[in-house]
Amino acid sequence: MTTAEVDVLIVGAGPAGLMLSLWLSRLGVTTRIVDKRTGKVFSGQADGFQLRTLEMLDSFGIGERIWKEANHMIEVVFWNPDPKGVIRRSSRVPDVIPGLSRFSQVVLHQGRMEQFFLDAIRKSYYGSDPSEGTPEGKSDPFAASKHIKIERCVIPTKLEVDESLSGNHDAHAVTVTLRHLTEAEATPTQKLSNLSDGLFRSNLAEDDVEDILKTSGSRMDKTGDASEEVVKARYVVGCDGAHSWTRTALGPDFAMVGEMTDFIWGVLDIVPITDFPDIRNRCMVHSESSGSMMVIPRENKLVRLYIQLTEVNAEGKSKRVDRSKITPDTILKAAQKILSPYKLEYHYCDWWTAYQIGQRVGRHFSKDNRVFLTGDAVHTHSPKAGQGMNVSMQDTFNLGWKLGLVCKGILRPELLSTYELERKQIAEELIAFDHKFSRLFSGRPAKDILDETGVSMEEFTKAFTLSHMFTTGVGINYQPSLLVAKEGEDSKVAAKKATSQPKLAKSCQPGTRFPSAKVLSQADGRPWELHHKMSSDGRFRMVVFGGDISSSNHLSNTNAMGEFLRTKLLPKYGSVKLSPGSDPHTCASKFKTAKDPSIIDVLLVHAAPRDKIEMLTDLDEVYHRFDEKLGWDYDRVFVDDISYHEGHGRAYEAYGVDICKGAVVLVRPDGYVGLVTELSEDGQKEVEKWFDGVLRPVA
Amino acid sequence: MTTAEVDVLIVGAGPAGLMLSLWLSRLGVTTRIVDKRTGKVFSGQADGFQLRTLEMLDSFGIGERIWKEANHMIEVVFWNPDPKGVIRRSSRVPDVIPGLSRFSQVVLHQGRMEQFFLDAIRKSYYGSDPSEGTPEGKSDPFAASKHIKIERCVIPTKLEVDESLSGNHDAHAVTVTLRHLTEAEATPTQKLSNLSDGLFRSNLAEDDVEDILKTSGSRMDKTGDASEEVVKARYVVGCDGAHSWTRTALGPDFAMVGEMTDFIWGVLDIVPITDFPDIRNRCMVHSESSGSMMVIPRENKLVRLYIQLTEVNAEGKSKRVDRSKITPDTILKAAQKILSPYKLEYHYCDWWTAYQIGQRVGRHFSKDNRVFLTGDAVHTHSPKAGQGMNVSMQDTFNLGWKLGLVCKGILRPELLSTYELERKQIAEELIAFDHKFSRLFSGRPAKDILDETGVSMEEFTKAFTLSHMFTTGVGINYQPSLLVAKEGEDSKVAAKKATSQPKLAKSCQPGTRFPSAKVLSQADGRPWELHHKMSSDGRFRMVVFGGDISSSNHLSNTNAMGEFLRTKLLPKYGSVKLSPGSDPHTCASKFKTAKDPSIIDVLLVHAAPRDKIEMLTDLDEVYHRFDEKLGWDYDRVFVDDISYHEGHGRAYEAYGVDICKGAVVLVRPDGYVGLVTELSEDGQKEVEKWFDGVLRPVA
Repeated sequence: MTTAEVDVLIVGAGPAGLMLSLWLSRLGVTTRIVDKRTGKVFSGQADGFQLRTLEMLDSFGIGERIWKEANHMIEVVFWNPDPKGVIRRSSRVPDVIPGLSRFSQVVLHQGRMEQFFLDAIRKSYYGSDPSEGTPEGKSDPFAASKHIKIERCVIPTKLEVDESLSGNHDAHAVTVTLRHLTEAEATPTQKLSNLSDGLFRSNLAEDDVEDILKTSGSRMDKTGDASEEVVKARYVVGCDGAHSWTRTALGPDFAMVGEMTDFIWGVLDIVPITDFPDIRNRCMVHSESSGSMMVIPRENKLVRLYIQLTEVNAEGKSKRVDRSKITPDTILKAAQKILSPYKLEYHYCDWWTAYQIGQRVGRHFSKDNRVFLTGDAVHTHSPKAGQGMNVSMQDTFNLGWKLGLVCKGILRPELLSTYELERKQIAEELIAFDHKFSRLFSGRPAKDILDETGVSMEEFTKAFTLSHMFTTGVGINYQPSLLVAKEGEDSKVAAKKATSQPKLAKSCQPGTRFPSAKVLSQADGRPWELHHKMSSDGRFRMVVFGGDISSSNHLSNTNAMGEFLRTKLLPKYGSVKLSPGSDPHTCASKFKTAKDPSIIDVLLVHAAPRDKIEMLTDLDEVYHRFDEKLGWDYDRVFVDDISYHEGHGRAYEAYGVDICKGAVVLVRPDGYVGLVTELSEDGQKEVEKWFDGVLRPVA
Repeated sequence: MTTAEVDVLIVGAGPAGLMLSLWLSRLGVTTRIVDKRTGKVFSGQADGFQLRTLEMLDSFGIGERIWKEANHMIEVVFWNPDPKGVIRRSSRVPDVIPGLSRFSQVVLHQGRMEQFFLDAIRKSYYGSDPSEGTPEGKSDPFAASKHIKIERCVIPTKLEVDESLSGNHDAHAVTVTLRHLTEAEATPTQKLSNLSDGLFRSNLAEDDVEDILKTSGSRMDKTGDASEEVVKARYVVGCDGAHSWTRTALGPDFAMVGEMTDFIWGVLDIVPITDFPDIRNRCMVHSESSGSMMVIPRENKLVRLYIQLTEVNAEGKSKRVDRSKITPDTILKAAQKILSPYKLEYHYCDWWTAYQIGQRVGRHFSKDNRVFLTGDAVHTHSPKAGQGMNVSMQDTFNLGWKLGLVCKGILRPELLSTYELERKQIAEELIAFDHKFSRLFSGRPAKDILDETGVSMEEFTKAFTLSHMFTTGVGINYQPSLLVAKEGEDSKVAAKKATSQPKLAKSCQPGTRFPSAKVLSQADGRPWELHHKMSSDGRFRMVVFGGDISSSNHLSNTNAMGEFLRTKLLPKYGSVKLSPGSDPHTCASKFKTAKDPSIIDVLLVHAAPRDKIEMLTDLDEVYHRFDEKLGWDYDRVFVDDISYHEGHGRAYEAYGVDICKGAVVLVRPDGYVGLVTELSEDGQKEVEKWFDGVLRPVA
C-alpha cells in the first residue's frame, strides 16, 4: 500500500464537493476529490438555482454560463379548486420579489453545472478557458496536475483522526484508506439490472456502499490485487450525500436526527403535450381531492412535475414504501387526475423518480475541525423548494476559503469553527422551513373557513411569499463571531473585538452578503456591477465609501484612511499568490501583476461627479497602486454617477450610505459583511482589531 | 493530381473568411477554407468591434463572448493645444451615441475572435460548445467533417471560370488548383529573419506570394512531390486581403483604384507607464506641431497608440518609405513628443507596426457571380477608425446566407448580384469617410480662425460625430432590389414588385437593419431582446405587429394574417433543415424539433396586456405550432408589456409602430428589413409578391 499526503481530501464530486474543489483550486491548495460513481450526472437530479447561488457562482465566473443556458422562472401561478371543485387560476405573483439581486431564479440540469465547475477548476490552473485548447503537453489537466486530482470509482474504507495532533494545523492528522474500484463495481446494481429505474438515487432506495465494499473486497481477495492506498490529509471533507460514508465513519454521535412523513411524491422530467395554459410558468396546483402538483418549466422544452402520489402509502412503523408500485405510468396517472379537466401526455421522458418527505439534520458538522460534513451529509429534506443543491453548495462556499487560507498559513486556524457556527444555523432554518412548507403543500385544500383539517390556500400563498428571503439565500444573516462584528456585543470581549456601526451602511448589515450595485469606473466611465470587482480569489475587501470627495473634507478623510491602509494595515498582512485564473471576468492576461497582490484588496466608491476627480493626482496611492512594469492600477476607483448607456446605479442609495458621512465596509472572501465602521481614526482602530482576530501577521 | 468537388471554396481564413464559413456551416453547405499562413493571429492586427458587428456576431452566439472579454470604450476625450501650445483636455463626449444599439464599441484582439469563430463553426455541426468535450470518435471535428475543412499552408495557383456554365448554378463552374506548402514555406521570411519585425503584414511591406510560389515550386521540381490538387467549386470567394491572390487571378480589370498619401503612422500595442490622465479613455490628441495621436484602451491593461510619424517621409513619385527608419523606438519617441509634457514609457510591448495612409477600392466585386471578392481584397484604407475588420465581416455576412441558400436550392440564383449592389456602395462610402477623416486627423491644428492651412478642431470634432451612423454600422441603408422593397419605386416594375409602406414602422426602414427591442415572452413573462429570437439560421422572418389584440378587431386581423401565412405562404416555400447548433442561444437540445421548420419563421409581437391573452385558445395556430412529439411551440409570441425585473421595453415605440394599426415587417436572414406592409389582405399580397421574387417554390 502506498501512502500519499495531501492538504485536503474531498469525498464526493457532486455540487458540494466541486464547489469546494473550485475554491481550493483558486487558492492553489493541493486537493484530491474521490467519488464512488463512474461519472457525472447526465439527467435528472437537482435543477433550481437560487439568487444567492447565482451570485456565488458568478464570483467564480460560472454564473453567466448558467444564466444564459437556464430557463428563467419569472412568474408563479396558483391554481386552486373553484366552488365546483374544478381547478382554476387564482393568482399570479412574481417568482422572486424584484430588487433582491441582479439575478432571478433559474432552472438547469445539474450535470451542466458540474461541467462548468470542472471547466472553472481547470481554468484556475491554466488561466484560460477550455475553448482555447489545452496548453501544450498537458493533455489531461487533472491527471497531470500536481495540485488537484478528481478521481472517479474510488471509495474510502477507513478514517482515523490523530487527536494528539489537534493543536498542530500543519500536521496531516487524518488518515484515510481509499479503495480503487472497477467500473462494474462502481456502477449501481439497480442501474445495471434496469436502466429505467428512476429510484436508484431516491431516498426510497437503499444505499449500495455495503454491496460495493463486499464485491470489491472479494475481488481483491481472489486476485490479491492491492487496490488500496493510504492518504494522509490535513483536512477531510465529506460531501458524500444523504448516505454519507464519512458521516458513518465518524461514529453514531454524528447520526442524523429527524423523521419521515407519510407523504410520497413522484417526479417526472418530460416534454409535455398539454392544453394546460400555464405549463411554461411555475405553478402550484392544489386539486380538490387528488393531491397537489408543482410545475417547474425547464430548459430544452422540458418541464419538471412534482406530483403527490395519494394512492401510494408508507406502511407500518418503519414507514416502508412498496417501490414496485411506483412507475412513470402511475406518476403520470396521478398527474392527470390533479390537472383534470386539462389533458396531459408526453412522448419524451428524460428522467423520473419518487421520494418520501422527511427532514433530518446532523448533530455535528465537524470532528475537531479536521473532518467536516457538508450538504446532504448533514441535512436532508424534500426537494420541491429547490433548496438542497443550493444549501449544499453554500455550505462548501462557506468552508472553502477558510480551509484554503488556513492551509496557506494566512487565516487563524481557530476560525474553522465558524463553519459549524454559521452553517448549522442555516441547516436548522432549512429543516423548519421545509417541515412547514411541505405539509402545507401536501395538505388537502380547505373547502371554506370552517374546514379545519384542510389547508387554507391564503395561508399557503402567504407562507410561500414569507419564505422568500430564506429560499432565495439573500436573507441569510450569520451570527456574531470573530468574522462577523455586530453592534453592541458582550462588553467583556468588546474591548478586544471589533464592533460595527451598521447604521452607516444600512443595506450592508454585518453577517449578511454585501449586495451588488452598479458603479462607474473612474478611469474610463464603464458601468460595472461592483460584485464583478470582488471575485472569489480568497482576498478580503475594504470597500471605502468616501462620500462626495469633491469636498476637501471628505477627500482628506478618504486619503487619511488610504494612508492608514497603505502604511500600516497592508504591510502587516502581506501578499497572496493568486492562481492564474483567479479573475474570472477578464480573459487570460499576458501581463498579470508582476507582484503578488495584498491579501486585503482596497476599493474606493465615491460620490463626487466623475469629471471632478483626477485619480492620479487627487487620491492616495493605495487607490491606484504603481507597478514598475505595469504602471498605475486603474481598476480600483469607482463612482456613483450616471452612465451614458445604462442609467444611474444609485449605489449609495442601494448600500444605505450617506454621501456626507461615508463608511468603510469590510467584506470577507465569501462576500459576507464582516465589519461596518466610520471613515475616521476610530474606524481605523476597528479595522485593525478585526484583522487582528482573523489573520496571522507576516513575520 | 486528385480532383475534388465542393460547393464553396474560400481563400483566406481571416475574419471575412471565417464569417463566411460560419454562415455556410449553419446552413450545412460543403465548404473548404484554405489559407497560406500557418495559423491564426496571436497578437496585433485589428481590434475594434462596432455596434452592428457585435449584433451580427451575437446572432451567431459569439457576441456575448466578445462583449465579456473586450474592453468597452465609453468616452472619447479630445486633447488640443492651448494658446501656449500645450496639449489640454478640451472636451469629452460619449464614444457612441446612446440608444443606437444594445451594444457599444468594444476592443479585443483579433485572434480571440478568430477562436470564437472556430468554436462556433464546430458548434454548428455538433450542437454543443467546445467546453463539453468532443463527441466520441470525432477527435478533430474539422478533419473528420464531410461538410467543412479549414486548411492552413495551402495556396491557390490557378483559377478558371467556365463561362459556358454560367446559366447553370448547380454546376461546379470554377476550377482552382491548390498547392500544399511546407510549414517553412508558409512562414513569412520577414518573420523568420527577424521576429520583431512588426511591418510584415503592413502596407509598407511587399507581398510574399511570389516568393512562396517560387520556393515551393523548386521544392516540387526537386522532389517530384505532387503537392497540388484540383478543386471544382460552384463558388469561390476571395477573402485573401489587400494583396488578394484571387483578385489578381481575375485579371487587370479587377485591379484596385485609388492612391497613397504622404502620411505615415506607427502603431504600438503596449502596457503604458504614464502620468497622462486619460490613458484608459479613447483620446484624439492633436499636438501643436509634432503630429497627432489616437489612444485606444484595450483588454489586459494594453493600450493601442496610433502615432503620426512626422519625421518619416514617403519619397519620390512612387511614394516609397524607408522602412528601416521605423522601429518601436522611433515610434515611441514620436509619441513622447506629441504627449509632452506628460511622460510615456513601457516595459511590455505586445505588437507594433506602421502604415501609409491611402484609399483604394475594387472596380468589381464579382466575376459572373461565381467568384466573389470581399473585405481588404476590394477596399483598403487607414485602420484608425476601426472599420477594416468590421466592414470585411459585414461583406461576407451579406454574402454568406445568399450563397448558402442558393446552394440549397431555396434562393433564386439571380439574387447573388445583390452582393455587389449592396456592398460596393458601402465600400465607396467607407473610402470617402476615411479620405476625409484621415486628412483631418493628420493635419496640423489651426492656430486661430485665420490659419487657413491648419485644421479647425471644431470641424474635426463635428466630422467625428457626424460619421457616427456610418462607423457604427447601424446607419447602413441598402438600395432597392428584389430583396429590398422601398416605397413608390419605378412604376414599370411596381406591378410585379412588392412596395413598402415604411410609415407603418418608422424605425424599420426597408434596407436598414431591423433593430432590437426588449419584449416579454407571452408564455412565461421572460424579457428577451427580440434579436435573440432571430438568430442567424438562414430563415426569413415575418414579424407580425398585431397591435392591441385585446380588441377583437385587431385580434381578427392578426389571425387573418396568421391563417394566410399558415395555409398559403408557408406551404408554398416548404421547410429547411437546420444544423444542430443553429440556435446559438440555447444549450444543445435533446429534443430538437422532430420536423424541419419552415424557411419562413413567424413571430407575433402584440401590445395587449399579457394577462389578457390566452395563447393556445385566442391565436391562430401559426403562432404556436403543434408537434405530435413536442406539443405546442411556446416561443413565438411576444408582448410589449412591463416586466417584473427589467422595466418596460416600449417595443412599439422603439419600432415606430402604432398599436392601433399594427404592421408586418419582413426581415431577411441577415437581419435587414425587406418589406414593411399592413396587416390586411393588401398586405398579404405584398408579402406574396416579395417572396415570389426571392424564393424558389417547392415542387
